[in-house]
Amino acid sequence: MSSVTARIVVQRTSREMELTAVNLAPTLKGFPAGFSEERLDEVRRLLDTRRTGFSLEAPFYTDDHLFNLDMQAIFGQNWVFACSVAEIPEPGDYVTLDYGPYSLIVLRTDDGGVNVLHNVCRHRGARVLTEDTGTTGNLVCGYHSWTYSPDGHLIHASAPGEMEFDKACYSLKRAHGKIAAGLVFLCLAEEPPADFDDTAAVFEPYVAPHELAKTKVAYQQNIIEEANWKLVMENNRECYHCDGHPELACALFPTWGLTDETIPPHLEDVWDRNQQAQAALEYRCRRYGLPYEVVEELDTRIAGIRISRESLDGQGESFSADGRRLSKKLLGDLPDFRLGRCSMHLQPNSWFHLLGDHVVTFTVLPINAHQTLVRTTWLVADDAVEGVDYDLETLTHTWKQTNLQDKNFVELCQQGATSPFYEQGPYMKSEYQVEAFINWYVTRMREHVG
Amino acid sequence: MSSVTARIVVQRTSREMELTAVNLAPTLKGFPAGFSEERLDEVRRLLDTRRTGFSLEAPFYTDDHLFNLDMQAIFGQNWVFACSVAEIPEPGDYVTLDYGPYSLIVLRTDDGGVNVLHNVCRHRGARVLTEDTGTTGNLVCGYHSWTYSPDGHLIHASAPGEMEFDKACYSLKRAHGKIAAGLVFLCLAEEPPADFDDTAAVFEPYVAPHELAKTKVAYQQNIIEEANWKLVMENNRECYHCDGHPELACALFPTWGLTDETIPPHLEDVWDRNQQAQAALEYRCRRYGLPYEVVEELDTRIAGIRISRESLDGQGESFSADGRRLSKKLLGDLPDFRLGRCSMHLQPNSWFHLLGDHVVTFTVLPINAHQTLVRTTWLVADDAVEGVDYDLETLTHTWKQTNLQDKNFVELCQQGATSPFYEQGPYMKSEYQVEAFINWYVTRMREHVG
Amino acid sequence: MSSVTARIVVQRTSREMELTAVNLAPTLKGFPAGFSEERLDEVRRLLDTRRTGFSLEAPFYTDDHLFNLDMQAIFGQNWVFACSVAEIPEPGDYVTLDYGPYSLIVLRTDDGGVNVLHNVCRHRGARVLTEDTGTTGNLVCGYHSWTYSPDGHLIHASAPGEMEFDKACYSLKRAHGKIAAGLVFLCLAEEPPADFDDTAAVFEPYVAPHELAKTKVAYQQNIIEEANWKLVMENNRECYHCDGHPELACALFPTWGLTDETIPPHLEDVWDRNQQAQAALEYRCRRYGLPYEVVEELDTRIAGIRISRESLDGQGESFSADGRRLSKKLLGDLPDFRLGRCSMHLQPNSWFHLLGDHVVTFTVLPINAHQTLVRTTWLVADDAVEGVDYDLETLTHTWKQTNLQDKNFVELCQQGATSPFYEQGPYMKSEYQVEAFINWYVTRMREHVG
Repeated sequence: MSSVTARIVVQRTSREMELTAVNLAPTLKGFPAGFSEERLDEVRRLLDTRRTGFSLEAPFYTDDHLFNLDMQAIFGQNWVFACSVAEIPEPGDYVTLDYGPYSLIVLRTDDGGVNVLHNVCRHRGARVLTEDTGTTGNLVCGYHSWTYSPDGHLIHASAPGEMEFDKACYSLKRAHGKIAAGLVFLCLAEEPPADFDDTAAVFEPYVAPHELAKTKVAYQQNIIEEANWKLVMENNRECYHCDGHPELACALFPTWGLTDETIPPHLEDVWDRNQQAQAALEYRCRRYGLPYEVVEELDTRIAGIRISRESLDGQGESFSADGRRLSKKLLGDLPDFRLGRCSMHLQPNSWFHLLGDHVVTFTVLPINAHQTLVRTTWLVADDAVEGVDYDLETLTHTWKQTNLQDKNFVELCQQGATSPFYEQGPYMKSEYQVEAFINWYVTRMREHVG
Repeated sequence: MSSVTARIVVQRTSREMELTAVNLAPTLKGFPAGFSEERLDEVRRLLDTRRTGFSLEAPFYTDDHLFNLDMQAIFGQNWVFACSVAEIPEPGDYVTLDYGPYSLIVLRTDDGGVNVLHNVCRHRGARVLTEDTGTTGNLVCGYHSWTYSPDGHLIHASAPGEMEFDKACYSLKRAHGKIAAGLVFLCLAEEPPADFDDTAAVFEPYVAPHELAKTKVAYQQNIIEEANWKLVMENNRECYHCDGHPELACALFPTWGLTDETIPPHLEDVWDRNQQAQAALEYRCRRYGLPYEVVEELDTRIAGIRISRESLDGQGESFSADGRRLSKKLLGDLPDFRLGRCSMHLQPNSWFHLLGDHVVTFTVLPINAHQTLVRTTWLVADDAVEGVDYDLETLTHTWKQTNLQDKNFVELCQQGATSPFYEQGPYMKSEYQVEAFINWYVTRMREHVG
Repeated sequence: MSSVTARIVVQRTSREMELTAVNLAPTLKGFPAGFSEERLDEVRRLLDTRRTGFSLEAPFYTDDHLFNLDMQAIFGQNWVFACSVAEIPEPGDYVTLDYGPYSLIVLRTDDGGVNVLHNVCRHRGARVLTEDTGTTGNLVCGYHSWTYSPDGHLIHASAPGEMEFDKACYSLKRAHGKIAAGLVFLCLAEEPPADFDDTAAVFEPYVAPHELAKTKVAYQQNIIEEANWKLVMENNRECYHCDGHPELACALFPTWGLTDETIPPHLEDVWDRNQQAQAALEYRCRRYGLPYEVVEELDTRIAGIRISRESLDGQGESFSADGRRLSKKLLGDLPDFRLGRCSMHLQPNSWFHLLGDHVVTFTVLPINAHQTLVRTTWLVADDAVEGVDYDLETLTHTWKQTNLQDKNFVELCQQGATSPFYEQGPYMKSEYQVEAFINWYVTRMREHVG
């Protein structure tokens, strides 16, 4: 009998531990706020029985509760790309950022840094700033005029007769913010993952020469994809599907994932052209002192990263049909347009293409289990003149088309995942970065649910 | 060991009690119909740990299950304002009313009373009346022509050969209805709260002189606010935010919640003007035999009520830019246009402004946890002629604008409440009626969940 | 104490059995995939306490979890009408079919049979075919070009260097398909109900003379009704409401469900006309060797069926205002236009009207607990020429109007079922087929949940 008693006691204890350990965000949408021990057991089972080399089981793509867990474990704990400094160049410039249940203000400070504040008034919970982007001094909530300093301190609340009201207790809640090589990141965790600075040190030599502080936003596109955010990410992490991107395929060599041993006969000519272009690119990088090495750390660190510099076809300068530059102004102090693309992937939700003439940043912002906002931003030199140095339609054509094609692909996968007859499928060798993304995700989730 | 046994037994017993006690509405949307003991425990914990003087925890504003509990405990148990007699002046006139999972018919009877019937055919469950408003004799379901008398008795069902079919068993289900001073109320509970008649006795001296039976509907506005119904109510119960209502601020004195001690220097002139106008208003009320005293019983009774008579700025007659009357016809046997506004707040979901020239009624009808219908109705003297005695746009301008401004405010709060970083905020002293609303709500919920 | 131990053990065992027995579709939308033992107990209780002769309790019409159970127990286990051969006349012709969480391809084979494949790529889960209908050789997924033979075998996956990749393991999953008398059926169960062939043998003599293989689709209508699929079916299974179908009432005799004993005086003339027309119809059928007997097996077999041949008013040929033919071409080798309507009802989700000049097929495809797609297809002789032999508007008028009227009826019932004051209503004698549908449904559900 004592075993029965013990068992009950253990269960209750583990549950209470869980309520402490997992429900860090106790008011996460839905109620009860967190997860019953039964549901967590089911998640643990799904994580434990995950087949290496295969896509996830369907609930990871379709289930509302698992989405909430993603928001806690992934988007509530890790460094997330917010914007580039080109979007908030001056002190007081801000963007607001909404994803999952979160709402944030990313505000440039007088010293060139960044404040990240939760966009929730401490009085009655109203959104404080309601525009996507703007410039502000103090932050004034439109409901009752509670007024906060740019670093979130409550400095004015008209509350006559409230003798005991201590404004110091009602600052806007803060999150962590960092700027590295002109890229702005935020983290909602109390104790952010410590390895971000190491990752930033890895990517700075690649990104810094493009001098994002001297760029401007040429265009920003927001599209909603009817798919789970992980399917959006998986799609980004392979080019096995790139036959479905005719515009992009003009610039890329169609040899993605192939090797000397596996190149098929009909691609041998292209392979040779690619090898020559890649050798020339390496030569130029070495001559200019630009880093060239591939970094492959997508699932070997928390702030996972991959960087590679890849030659482009044709003129090798940009994402155009013939590989020619799309903006006439070189970025930063770059010495040459012919730098191919430096592609950087960061976990959990961003990627970047850095070229001689422009930069494209991508952020994946989950809305719910079934919908995801993908934000694409084109940056050009801040002295480039639209219509003179670049044509906006031409500049954005390739990735606008590619994004729409990708939207279609991931939506077909989302539909498939709702079928009870969906089964985990095998990743091919050329999909090793998808596998790395999933490895990273599963590791983070395991850490979170214990 | 015996304690373990006892504990299990107690749990099972309490659960069965709960199924009896709480699930009064066994088919409430969603399944299982009611709440597991675990969920109820969570609600009890949230209610028990409620911080006095602070807004509610987020799940009360966002959670679908708590919304269902609101529908049971608040809208299923209390007297709810349905309409005024101006909307159903003649026998056979009806309005249909939908809120939460409920659908009702409010039908004027031959004797001037009101029948309240559930709008659910007893045959196959179809809506019996499908229009928002109209006039009917017997009620005929459009599906199979089952026909009910105005008091709900099934009087015809073409059922040839149904010898054993007893029509007496299939009356439309009835709810309680009452008319007090021309205001129509309904209650879905088997045993309605007994103190409603006391409350009606309180408000009748204030409302009766406006003689609603001699008014007509000038305009009715239905707007959907993307917010929980409680945020809509909280917004109504304070004027701390009234700087956000420029049109309304023309008529109101901007001194809401202030006292002699707390009035700031720049408002001293206004304060004096307000004090004088209020004294004049009191004098007129006393002379005309109109009640003037403030009633403050929002959370000290079940049928909670607040009434106050407040002077208006300018001419002091109506909600216009200069305080002048908006309709030329005095209501009822009122002796004077200069009566300010008599404002009445009722729990759980209505408020009223009674003026010399018109009356505005407001009903808050929850749709789901995130959406609420707000219905505003402008009443003028039944012999007032549009275009002659009143201009419809001018009559409705101030509250149409104010409603849109309020919609924006509460929607910003709803968005805020979805953030895991939302935290209960402090009510200011001038928000004491918000606090009273929440006290009332929490008390009702505690009674309901035991 | 030992009783407590035993009880716990029993519970755990029964739960594990349940997870094996019920969760045949482990990734059914939502997570956890299936049903907790507590929920299943609630379903069992609802099924056990079902009142014979009455409509179902509200959760069967409104609850999302019960919808998922319907998808498992009813649409995951039984033979479902997919289309007629007129929709896929040639080898390689296909339709895709989506209902509940399922997505299927129904593909005509070279030998005149049909392959039914789950429309979920085995690589990354994308929909393989994205059109509603078309013609295909091999099936190529648009995402990574995985290519399947028409019977679902993976025959090409460009996977250089994937030595260990065994294509034989990644065929598209198959379901069962059958063609009977030109009607195409599918079943998702591993072991389909065995009595389908008996049912097919029953309906073949009625359907075969219309020779569906020699028909073409004149028109197909898809409408979404805001109601649970069972309310759509219940509505189909009675004509007690047919006063609400003025167009249909021109062709039908308004005596549905009546008998010699129950015919009311004002319908005696019509009754006589009906009796005469029915006698003449029987005479013609006997003379032409067409089966005439009524089949009533809606709830006495798994592949439930009802067939009856009913005379039409006026000319007795078709669903027109005067009963005249709507297409000039007789179907198949039928000898006469004056064959009334041969109406066939199949469980769970289809019905058919077979006439001399055209055939109408109806399929009910659930979307979720609250929405249902109703697909209506008009078939005429394949050599009938639009504008010459038939006018499309006239051909489709009666059922287009009737469908819209039915949509309105079932939506009013769905609204009613959400009220906590909805109560199961009695079926009249003339609604015995509704009762049979519900009997059949409840029996299938009981078998499923044990």
